[in-house]
Amino acid sequence: MSSEHAPTSPAYDPARIRHAHFRSLVTDPADAATHIRDGDTVAISGFASAGTPKAFAPALADRIRAVRAGGGTMAVNLLTGASVANECEQILAEVDGIALRMPYQSEPTARRKINAGEMDYVDVHLSHVAQQVWMGYYGDVDVAVVEVAAVTEDGRLVPAMSVGNNKTWLEVADKVILEVNSWVPLGVEGMHDVYYGTALPPSRRPIQLTRADERIGQEYLEVDPAKVVAVVPTDQRDSESSLTEPDAVSQAIAGHVLDFFAHEVKRGRLPADSLLPLQAGIGNVANAVLAGLDAGPYSDLTCYSEVIQDSMLRLIKEGKVAHASATALALSAAGLSELVENFDLYKKHVTLRPQEISNHPELVRRLGAIAMNGMLEADVYGNVNSTHIGGTRIMNGIGGSGDFTRNGYVSMFLSPSTAKGGTVSSIVPMVPHVDHTEHDVQVIVTEHGLADLRKTSPRKRSRLVVESCADPAFRPLLHDYLDRAEARPDAGNTPHILEEAFSFHTRLAETGTMLG
Amino acid sequence: MSSEHAPTSPAYDPARIRHAHFRSLVTDPADAATHIRDGDTVAISGFASAGTPKAFAPALADRIRAVRAGGGTMAVNLLTGASVANECEQILAEVDGIALRMPYQSEPTARRKINAGEMDYVDVHLSHVAQQVWMGYYGDVDVAVVEVAAVTEDGRLVPAMSVGNNKTWLEVADKVILEVNSWVPLGVEGMHDVYYGTALPPSRRPIQLTRADERIGQEYLEVDPAKVVAVVPTDQRDSESSLTEPDAVSQAIAGHVLDFFAHEVKRGRLPADSLLPLQAGIGNVANAVLAGLDAGPYSDLTCYSEVIQDSMLRLIKEGKVAHASATALALSAAGLSELVENFDLYKKHVTLRPQEISNHPELVRRLGAIAMNGMLEADVYGNVNSTHIGGTRIMNGIGGSGDFTRNGYVSMFLSPSTAKGGTVSSIVPMVPHVDHTEHDVQVIVTEHGLADLRKTSPRKRSRLVVESCADPAFRPLLHDYLDRAEARPDAGNTPHILEEAFSFHTRLAETGTMLG
Repeated sequence: MSSEHAPTSPAYDPARIRHAHFRSLVTDPADAATHIRDGDTVAISGFASAGTPKAFAPALADRIRAVRAGGGTMAVNLLTGASVANECEQILAEVDGIALRMPYQSEPTARRKINAGEMDYVDVHLSHVAQQVWMGYYGDVDVAVVEVAAVTEDGRLVPAMSVGNNKTWLEVADKVILEVNSWVPLGVEGMHDVYYGTALPPSRRPIQLTRADERIGQEYLEVDPAKVVAVVPTDQRDSESSLTEPDAVSQAIAGHVLDFFAHEVKRGRLPADSLLPLQAGIGNVANAVLAGLDAGPYSDLTCYSEVIQDSMLRLIKEGKVAHASATALALSAAGLSELVENFDLYKKHVTLRPQEISNHPELVRRLGAIAMNGMLEADVYGNVNSTHIGGTRIMNGIGGSGDFTRNGYVSMFLSPSTAKGGTVSSIVPMVPHVDHTEHDVQVIVTEHGLADLRKTSPRKRSRLVVESCADPAFRPLLHDYLDRAEARPDAGNTPHILEEAFSFHTRLAETGTMLG
Repeated sequence: MSSEHAPTSPAYDPARIRHAHFRSLVTDPADAATHIRDGDTVAISGFASAGTPKAFAPALADRIRAVRAGGGTMAVNLLTGASVANECEQILAEVDGIALRMPYQSEPTARRKINAGEMDYVDVHLSHVAQQVWMGYYGDVDVAVVEVAAVTEDGRLVPAMSVGNNKTWLEVADKVILEVNSWVPLGVEGMHDVYYGTALPPSRRPIQLTRADERIGQEYLEVDPAKVVAVVPTDQRDSESSLTEPDAVSQAIAGHVLDFFAHEVKRGRLPADSLLPLQAGIGNVANAVLAGLDAGPYSDLTCYSEVIQDSMLRLIKEGKVAHASATALALSAAGLSELVENFDLYKKHVTLRPQEISNHPELVRRLGAIAMNGMLEADVYGNVNSTHIGGTRIMNGIGGSGDFTRNGYVSMFLSPSTAKGGTVSSIVPMVPHVDHTEHDVQVIVTEHGLADLRKTSPRKRSRLVVESCADPAFRPLLHDYLDRAEARPDAGNTPHILEEAFSFHTRLAETGTMLG
């Protein structure tokens, strides 16, 4: 489809493309994909399930197949906000279209390629991505593909359901492809706060944000029209985040977290009505904890996080959460419907920012975020493995958990105490991959209890973690390990038996269970 | 000695105590020590070798012995800036006077007690200490013992050779003991910038510092005179940091670092004359790297670090470094003499700040510090062990290395490739304790070369680390491990053989060498 035919696309909506130059660039996905060459570094929009370009991946996959059919080679380096819609990740991984992937993924096909050594994966703190790309660590960015809700009369862009790194992609890319998605409610205009004050050192200045509901930027993304090579109309709904209803385990975890908040309020360490801004990672447990806040005595909560999940919408609707700041709306099908149906309500209480700002160490530290993230496993000394199953096979990536854990006010990790029907313990003698060190992890929570590791030396911490968090079936094994480690001559500050430190993991690999 | 006799102390200098109320509190160390009770939490001044109270530890040790001789019990929780003068740490550890120690130590007797499980040690990021104590994580602080250079006419305090956590200690303690040290040159007045704008969330505001040479605070520490219970005159010189002259290995490491800087300048990633503010950990290697900058083409360097070592004085004197910001002067005997003899010169180019500010994530990120820290060992995937020998025995602590590594612009770890006469490799298959994760470590340097881990996936990173940094004697062992790990079915994103991951360490324990 050449540009003069574009308005025949069923997704084309002139109210979404209000600028003549951009209208002249309207084309179909296949045509847009011809701008992408073998070896390009392609930066796309998308953070969790929100804001991934809808037409890009299928069109690029078609192009890759066509190039290969003609005897050519074709693969790209793919940069994103975080994970993107599974459909996008999968279709490109299936055609071996991704040579290098950065900074986060959570899709089975890509994961398999990465673990097979067939795709390079660089797992980067989400707050570091923009500066690293700006500084050229990833070479030139050839093409940015960014989903937006609309192009305004003056050529500015209304962001869609996530902001992610879109500001940076539009700035650094040589060419820009826009997807204008008419599914995104037009009412989204004004919900974003895009801060244009970041810079590279030595030119950095203070970022003046002091509250989750403050605005320090503008409602629109900017783009140099001369760089835009294609505008593709789409009308597909955002991908869905899968969520299950809170079960007994996640409700028990939520209960311990709520008790901890009450305890901290009582000690004068957290404000009684509002606590401090909440950050919660993606997933069922975090969703359950937030849902549990519904029952708490709070009336003026805020959220300063990466993503807004379903439970946050409910807290907003019920007046528990006054404001939620994030970089993306990662909702289930029901959550998406709820959002779209009551858009005016949510727009008042939600601000979406670039991930450079939502995860910025300066702001996370200043606001004093309460960091609540999931984990694969923790060890008895409080080191956390968030990324590598068995120490070798990547699950997803570190995402923003490090940004919040390191710089937040209280750093909590939440997990069921077991997995795989009770055969895998999430509390182990030593984690075989460390994403968050004992220096950063302050609180560990499972359905059995909460271990407050603040002001604890390693030898005290280990017993606390076992007694508070480990499943009772694993406690004797863990205590036995610690007893014998502590009894060794020169046992040290952090007693271990290196020959046995991974015995839980090797037993699992050999026998299918960590139980002895 | 009662207060009316105090002026007979040889260290007493009325020019140092210019306020009548404080003069009335002058007493001897033994009398001051009576304010400290069993179980107290005592927060003292001192950061590295600078600014530790001189009279406090011997007097407290005497008191502890006396109390015990009378059948009583006596020990305290000891909070400091970082390490303190070895004499102080040692004398208190020898009498088992410390129940809990926070946040950093580097003294052999204390280390032995900690590793024997006889002293609780809480190893905390230095930028986190003030907020954690303010928030009550360590309970009430009963007594602060702070060395100062003088008390002014209006009752303010001239800080000594380090600031550390002194502002916080003076604010939070119930009682304050001041040591007024007349060895500290009076010219030190004005060299400090004590920022009084920090707060706990939700009341935190942006910290407006944008350059290493900017001032945002005041020259003096404040204290509520009603809390001061004793003023002890002293006249002892600061402790000395031991430093050796740069040897061939540390000079080779410095050479690789200088090449890296030149490469980054060429790529437009670092300003040509000034680079970005340098942070260098304490020790011979860091000192050698800084000394090596002397030969570089730089004319306007700055330093934003914890400590100023000898080599920094030389760079200042030779006009290479325009300004150095830190929280302490940690100098050798020769360095101390040089400083005192040319105090007016150094005062113009040095600013000492609270460690809350020198290590603040907001400022480290904004200024874009080049973080250069030592390590015990790194693994092939870029995880760094800074603290635990063999994974169990604490050496010193994490100190500020995490503050700078996580939030700095480029994060580098430097070490000789071997220790113990070549029998111990500082590059190992897996580190048995992680202080800095693969997500945070960007560059590893030994005398053999520099591994730039940016934009590398784990499988590429591992070979780069081995080939660039490992001692040639260990490379075959490391490659063999990686070959076999990568050949395993489902080897994963980060191939390891858990049963053998610590084979270097267990071999060392069994045979006295990591060599096969």
